Amino acid sequence: MTYCVGIETDEGLVFAADTRTNASLDDVRVHRKLHVFEYPGQAVFAIMSAGNLATTQLTLAKLQRDADDGAPRSLRAFRHLFEAAEYVGEVLVSSQAKLSEQAQQSGVSTSATLILGGQIAGERPGLYMIYPLGNAIASSPETPYMQIGESKYGKPILDRIIRPEMKLEDAARTALVSLDSTIRSNLSVGMPIDLALIRTNDLRVTERMRLEADTPLYADIHENWSRKLENAVRTLPRFPWEPALPEADTSAAPGALPPLPPRRSAIRRDPEDQAAQQ
Amino acid sequence: MTYCVGIETDEGLVFAADTRTNASLDDVRVHRKLHVFEYPGQAVFAIMSAGNLATTQLTLAKLQRDADDGAPRSLRAFRHLFEAAEYVGEVLVSSQAKLSEQAQQSGVSTSATLILGGQIAGERPGLYMIYPLGNAIASSPETPYMQIGESKYGKPILDRIIRPEMKLEDAARTALVSLDSTIRSNLSVGMPIDLALIRTNDLRVTERMRLEADTPLYADIHENWSRKLENAVRTLPRFPWEPALPEADTSAAPGALPPLPPRRSAIRRDPEDQAAQQ
Repeated sequence: MTYCVGIETDEGLVFAADTRTNASLDDVRVHRKLHVFEYPGQAVFAIMSAGNLATTQLTLAKLQRDADDGAPRSLRAFRHLFEAAEYVGEVLVSSQAKLSEQAQQSGVSTSATLILGGQIAGERPGLYMIYPLGNAIASSPETPYMQIGESKYGKPILDRIIRPEMKLEDAARTALVSLDSTIRSNLSVGMPIDLALIRTNDLRVTERMRLEADTPLYADIHENWSRKLENAVRTLPRFPWEPALPEADTSAAPGALPPLPPRRSAIRRDPEDQAAQQ
Repeated sequence: MTYCVGIETDEGLVFAADTRTNASLDDVRVHRKLHVFEYPGQAVFAIMSAGNLATTQLTLAKLQRDADDGAPRSLRAFRHLFEAAEYVGEVLVSSQAKLSEQAQQSGVSTSATLILGGQIAGERPGLYMIYPLGNAIASSPETPYMQIGESKYGKPILDRIIRPEMKLEDAARTALVSLDSTIRSNLSVGMPIDLALIRTNDLRVTERMRLEADTPLYADIHENWSRKLENAVRTLPRFPWEPALPEADTSAAPGALPPLPPRRSAIRRDPEDQAAQQ
């Protein structure tokens, strides 16, 4: 499986993708799912992929070839992003068709879904989801994000936080939390994480990072987020039967709350353990 | 669909369930999915259900009848919770079988999954997930919660926060956030929410609430949680290219951050809008 999220804010675009691919539980590999096409000053595109890896690699190779050859239809040739989305959809459909002829009998699905985002000079940036049929939908101010792959675990934080007005870096931090939630709850999505930011009118990839589990920034997010959530839960409203929070607690900064007990390591309540059962 | 979560902490058990059932998008109703069987001083059980509503109603009716009739096998008769789980599994299987004979040709699934939790005098409380086959697994200190139904949206917060050592009310608040995240991100899970707490050795339902969207406690959680998350995201580590947070921001309490801009209401970036498109 896969999890990729693209976010469109007023300041620009954020792309974040995991890198785990698996054919089964014991055939797990790392493959890049976030790909960048840069034509500085003219146009910049990022494409993220979920689905059949052979299909997406073929699609990306064709996009690269068309651009390198100066084909009449290529990522360098369009003046509008929606035309680029249409073209990428056509290339996706042709790649699926080629493979599905070969795979017809095997029962393997050759379909893939893409997120395309970017900016062409003279236009504002945009973000599209491209379906296996080749058709596409754009993000909107009400839903300024797109997800592909294993999207449910990471959706609530996006629904609650992402808004067009937010800082680009805050959107990127939210994307990393969304990825981290998914990686933590689902084995099929895994580290490292690829991250790219395209700031409006930069017409190039503004920032690009690969985050490993031990990258200090990611390790901090991974460890601090649970702590921040625990503190947030503790400051939610009391139930009617509970005493009010002591004054000191309600006014304290999150870091000032008493330290949490360590996670229990010894198994105290193993149902196999007859002594513990009584 | 449905979403129910049960949590086992050292202080007791939490049960939280939505109440939406739907046969399709336009056949949506409210049905209770959290049911309580109380024998004060002897035993207390809560059962939550996901799946075919006719099956779960038949199962619950049989459990009630057996207990009322003083049957040799009933919720009142067991000395161990695992025996109660086994019995509930048997009743579930027989209810599915009866219905599936009738539904064989229709293609409708009659299966259901249950969460059973409670305490029998002389034993500690426990929490079981009962599968459609009638078999059951118990929660553990490493995974002190069980989910049934539309479980992915609400899983990350449980994975990050829930621990056996936490206060029972904090576990209940976490369950409500987990429900709220799911309701917000998925149409098939809906208000009101049923909540029950069973404190260890009370041998009765300690607290029980039905939360509507306008119940002050729930409304507060619903509105404040996004705000708390936004503040938490803003205080996550900076990216290497960002300036450090100003001192005042890092030390401020969550409530002290500058107010967030209101959610945008007017559609500024409709792709149909040629003026906005350039």
